[in-house]
Amino acid sequence: MSKDKTKVRQLLDAVRASGRTSLTAPEGKQVCDAYGIAVPGEGVAKSAAEAGKLASAMGYPVVLKIVSPDILHKTEAGGVIVGVTSADEATKAYDTILVNAKKYKADAKIDGVQVQQMLKGGQEVIVGAVTDGSFGKLVAFGLGGVLVEVLKDITFRLAPATKADALSMLDGIQAAEMLRGVRGGDAVDRDALANLIVGVSELVSDFPEISEMDLNPVFATKDSAIAADVRIVVDFAQKAPRYRPPEAEVVKSMNRIMQPKAVAVIGASDEAGKIGNSVMKNLINGGYKGQIYPIHPKAAEIMGYKAFKSVKDVPGEIDTAVFAIPAKLVAGALVECGEKKIAGAVLIPSGFAETGNHEGQAELVEIGRKYNIRLMGPNIYGFYYTPANLCATFCTAYDVKGSAALSSQSGGIGMAIIGFSRSAKMGVSAIVGLGNKSDIDEDDLLLFFEQDPNTKVIAQHCEDLKDGRAFAEVAKRVSKKKPVIMLKAGRTAAGAKAASSHTGALAGNDKIYDDVLRQSGVIRARSLRDLLDFARGVPILPTPKGENIVIITGAGGSGVLLSDACVDQGLKLMPMPADLDAAFRKFIPPFGAAGNPVDITGGEPPQTYKNTVLLGLSDPRIHALILGYWHTIVTPPMVFAKIMVEAREEMLAKGIEKPMVASLAGDVQVEEAAQYLYEHGIPAYAYSTEIPVAVLGAKYQWARGAGLL
Amino acid sequence: MSKDKTKVRQLLDAVRASGRTSLTAPEGKQVCDAYGIAVPGEGVAKSAAEAGKLASAMGYPVVLKIVSPDILHKTEAGGVIVGVTSADEATKAYDTILVNAKKYKADAKIDGVQVQQMLKGGQEVIVGAVTDGSFGKLVAFGLGGVLVEVLKDITFRLAPATKADALSMLDGIQAAEMLRGVRGGDAVDRDALANLIVGVSELVSDFPEISEMDLNPVFATKDSAIAADVRIVVDFAQKAPRYRPPEAEVVKSMNRIMQPKAVAVIGASDEAGKIGNSVMKNLINGGYKGQIYPIHPKAAEIMGYKAFKSVKDVPGEIDTAVFAIPAKLVAGALVECGEKKIAGAVLIPSGFAETGNHEGQAELVEIGRKYNIRLMGPNIYGFYYTPANLCATFCTAYDVKGSAALSSQSGGIGMAIIGFSRSAKMGVSAIVGLGNKSDIDEDDLLLFFEQDPNTKVIAQHCEDLKDGRAFAEVAKRVSKKKPVIMLKAGRTAAGAKAASSHTGALAGNDKIYDDVLRQSGVIRARSLRDLLDFARGVPILPTPKGENIVIITGAGGSGVLLSDACVDQGLKLMPMPADLDAAFRKFIPPFGAAGNPVDITGGEPPQTYKNTVLLGLSDPRIHALILGYWHTIVTPPMVFAKIMVEAREEMLAKGIEKPMVASLAGDVQVEEAAQYLYEHGIPAYAYSTEIPVAVLGAKYQWARGAGLL
Repeated sequence: MSKDKTKVRQLLDAVRASGRTSLTAPEGKQVCDAYGIAVPGEGVAKSAAEAGKLASAMGYPVVLKIVSPDILHKTEAGGVIVGVTSADEATKAYDTILVNAKKYKADAKIDGVQVQQMLKGGQEVIVGAVTDGSFGKLVAFGLGGVLVEVLKDITFRLAPATKADALSMLDGIQAAEMLRGVRGGDAVDRDALANLIVGVSELVSDFPEISEMDLNPVFATKDSAIAADVRIVVDFAQKAPRYRPPEAEVVKSMNRIMQPKAVAVIGASDEAGKIGNSVMKNLINGGYKGQIYPIHPKAAEIMGYKAFKSVKDVPGEIDTAVFAIPAKLVAGALVECGEKKIAGAVLIPSGFAETGNHEGQAELVEIGRKYNIRLMGPNIYGFYYTPANLCATFCTAYDVKGSAALSSQSGGIGMAIIGFSRSAKMGVSAIVGLGNKSDIDEDDLLLFFEQDPNTKVIAQHCEDLKDGRAFAEVAKRVSKKKPVIMLKAGRTAAGAKAASSHTGALAGNDKIYDDVLRQSGVIRARSLRDLLDFARGVPILPTPKGENIVIITGAGGSGVLLSDACVDQGLKLMPMPADLDAAFRKFIPPFGAAGNPVDITGGEPPQTYKNTVLLGLSDPRIHALILGYWHTIVTPPMVFAKIMVEAREEMLAKGIEKPMVASLAGDVQVEEAAQYLYEHGIPAYAYSTEIPVAVLGAKYQWARGAGLL
Repeated sequence: MSKDKTKVRQLLDAVRASGRTSLTAPEGKQVCDAYGIAVPGEGVAKSAAEAGKLASAMGYPVVLKIVSPDILHKTEAGGVIVGVTSADEATKAYDTILVNAKKYKADAKIDGVQVQQMLKGGQEVIVGAVTDGSFGKLVAFGLGGVLVEVLKDITFRLAPATKADALSMLDGIQAAEMLRGVRGGDAVDRDALANLIVGVSELVSDFPEISEMDLNPVFATKDSAIAADVRIVVDFAQKAPRYRPPEAEVVKSMNRIMQPKAVAVIGASDEAGKIGNSVMKNLINGGYKGQIYPIHPKAAEIMGYKAFKSVKDVPGEIDTAVFAIPAKLVAGALVECGEKKIAGAVLIPSGFAETGNHEGQAELVEIGRKYNIRLMGPNIYGFYYTPANLCATFCTAYDVKGSAALSSQSGGIGMAIIGFSRSAKMGVSAIVGLGNKSDIDEDDLLLFFEQDPNTKVIAQHCEDLKDGRAFAEVAKRVSKKKPVIMLKAGRTAAGAKAASSHTGALAGNDKIYDDVLRQSGVIRARSLRDLLDFARGVPILPTPKGENIVIITGAGGSGVLLSDACVDQGLKLMPMPADLDAAFRKFIPPFGAAGNPVDITGGEPPQTYKNTVLLGLSDPRIHALILGYWHTIVTPPMVFAKIMVEAREEMLAKGIEKPMVASLAGDVQVEEAAQYLYEHGIPAYAYSTEIPVAVLGAKYQWARGAGLL
């Protein structure tokens, strides 16, 4: 794509010099020309006669539009006349527009009337750009027209967008089918449209002062994509970029913090009920093998450990300092930590930004930056890192080791994570509280977990992303290696902020999160239970090698509900090949249904489940199995569970592993069976058809996003 | 509305006589005229000159359309010319159309060319009707245009529709805002549009041979709704209506079956593992107090009860016969039941329609009709009716009494109901298996539960409704008294059946279920867990007296997720009045947030929860509370649970009761607290913000549908 940056720079400088906040239509056209964004033939007439001449030169029909820096809403001002088909009409239209403009705003400065080739046919679409407080520049795409404005059918990507991003936007709207040509209409030129989107995304990235942009409508036809109207809003007051330490430095610090050789507890206490006492107990009873240094102004010894007045008195190196002192004492102790070259401060105390004490929090951030100490919190429960037997928290200890790393912005959600984990015996590598996120936030954790061999899946709860762009950049890379799952709370408090462009007004804040998270390969959990179930199930499942899923069920009724769930999750039920159908039929009663679901019927013995599942695992055309179990006397729950694990392990021994999930319908004994299956590599749920399929769906979503399917 | 039925009858008779399956445009217009459905001015020209004259008489622009019984797709045939603006153009258009029609189909019979006033402006909508195998006549409404066809934004109601039904359709589409006038456009004439919908719905109800109908487009403007094109498809082969016993008779039989004075077990057995043995055990051990008669060809006594060779040998009356014999013996035993005047046969045996034995099942239905025995099943687990301590089933017994009546079409789902109920200690009045539904189905159960004082909520799983219309009619009445919840499985296997109208093609089977269930006041569960959670929670909650909901939370993070869930469920967070805000602030720390959610913050003692909840319960402006609990040392889970129940009971003593649900974030102890809360009138969930709000949402949905809000 040809880009004339100098030209755009000159134009924007002129706009800035004139004190304007938006570009005129002719300026907009020139900007587009400089970035290869196609616009219609046009010129600006200074007189009625010139309007007629210009129009005749470019061919009819034409549209005439007022050019005035003082009139932003041209249609409202009566400043637009469409469908002009002769020189005579053009001259009259010129005069009418001038009269209307004067009526609308008597003192408006009028630069002339733009005469523009009128585009027809094809599909009207809208391409635009906005500047988001967290994500920065975003490019937007949707269908044009009133209806789509009503349905808010628009999609966003981080700018600059790649050609692949742009193409994904064409499929990313509800009404995507419209672009493929419906009822005999032509399909649009996807390549031209994607190029135009890329052009806009590069333009706003190259020139951050372009705060909003609308190409509306863009006429997308079978051989072109031309922007009929260009609107560019500028904001020359640029905010300073957020400080981000280099990634290598983040990883180095995070490794010291999460796997410390020595931990100091500032405010350690012998007194039960005190936070400093709970932290000490958790460190000791959790089995942490490193050095523990209680810090206390007076005590000589706390819980059998030698105490120090200050971290500076500790002879050895300290990696992590856990704070359990009142807010007003934190800054002083943090300076000492800095002088001691401690890598990170775990700031449990509350009483900072969350209570309105923004100055206090800013002070901590400043100290942190000065001494290069990373801050976790403040206002958190602390963190757990099970590979180091480390419970650096005042909450109850947790020791079930596993591969899920979870984090939460809120303490309450953190407690729910701990409770659910314990109840489900979910193995975790880490649970981290982020609280006020004065410093360490989601992308710092991603960088640590990316290289942490103990973590296979990362699940995060957040209410906002302080720096959505940084998160997206890191997540895009990390999610290719390990599934990243996010529960973004506050998703329905859609942004109602005022905006001066169509694209801006359409940008419900949550839709941006939705699109950017998908663009970054992040799996979005829709509920707290989904976050927890995905964190538990996704790392257990092997990566599927293809999209073909087969349901094997003892209960026809479960089969129907499992099929529903597959459609909901975007999973594909394999059409059953005739030979495989015949092979399944050999194992099931004549009135059972092969096809997919394979309905083995309810009265069958364990061996029927096993035979069909072994067949499903061994046939290379099948990539994943969903099991529907029905509790009967012939095949009791634990018998089913054990034989399924047997089948799985027999195939594993032959080097074959496929994702399997199970839905268990039956009396309470199915709960024990589900737990047994889960612990043996088969995520299973009692009384639910939808949750096991959602877990499998999350695994598929990740595998697709990571380019593994 | 004026209706000329005689006129329509004459027209349809003529169509029938001519052996056609669709009406010509002029016939369609006459039908519309007869039912007060507005159509544009028009006439049929037999010559080019007449076309010119007709056009000039009605005013330009006009549209010309071929009239031929042999050409259904007029546009495809080149048989439509729009935008004709003079007599000269009209005569030319006539000739062109004739040439095109001959080219398209040389032997087409041509009745002339229709000249029609061209409608412009307003909103193009589509109104139509279809005939559904289960629901019968349905009227449909959507926006016109290609885009809506792509988005499938259409809504259905049972025909005939009331004016209120019709008006609800205008709000029942995604793009409803379009009808209210957007960007300066006029709102449509809702009254005229609703009348047109009612007219169509009455027309197809009065004349069942009209199988499909399309008014597409209808031009809806600010003062009219005129159908520009009418398409009517007829089918004179009418199927016989399904037999439905009178409601009083259904209720009489169902009462005998569900609360029998005497039960016969056909195929009773002493041998453990046999179905006839399990049924006997369940009847005896379940504590059933009525007579039990084992039926066995040889035994004199079974499990201590005198056995009989046939039900006919039993001296007393029998209400219910439970079948536990092979399929091939069922018909013979059923005849004996008929002769004994038994009210109902519980047909546990499989081997009928589900294995392809349709004849065997038809034979049972015939016997049932002949002797007036109602049949449950075949192919079922039986049923439970706890008020009578009756477990007429071979599954495990269940005895937790309560007010939820559940049923399932599938045995597997039935087992999941039993397991979940036992696990959650859910009180049920009945659990019923419907299986093949040869006779008794969902609406029979509704009629029984409607008048059953032990049942407060009815939750049903089904894969299809054999007679959706009968169900809808009964559900509409019953749901006004008791919540009816349905999990309709197979919802994503949308109907892809061929249809010869637009409306027909748009009628995904599931959308019809969705709309008709809503029209009937039925709450649709989206998943098995939802069905179970709603059945458990909805009857416990009192009916809210208004829409104002307040969240009171100890965890800010839960508050955000609970707010999200409220938006998802269509629940309204009350904007907090200043005086109430001040009143809440008295109880919470200065940095807590009043407003809504009321965030009391995490470190608060039990009394803060209690004070704020008492305030929420006592202020008459608040109609329901959502509680967000955060597990802390200061307020442990059971302390929270007990103090909440205290608060509820204190207010109950004052005659104040409001729905309350709770989300508990914390360690595993919150599970016990949730169970305690549930058992004391507050549906509560551990580790979930979304489920408690969904339960409250279901209660609200019911209350709104029943006209209580």
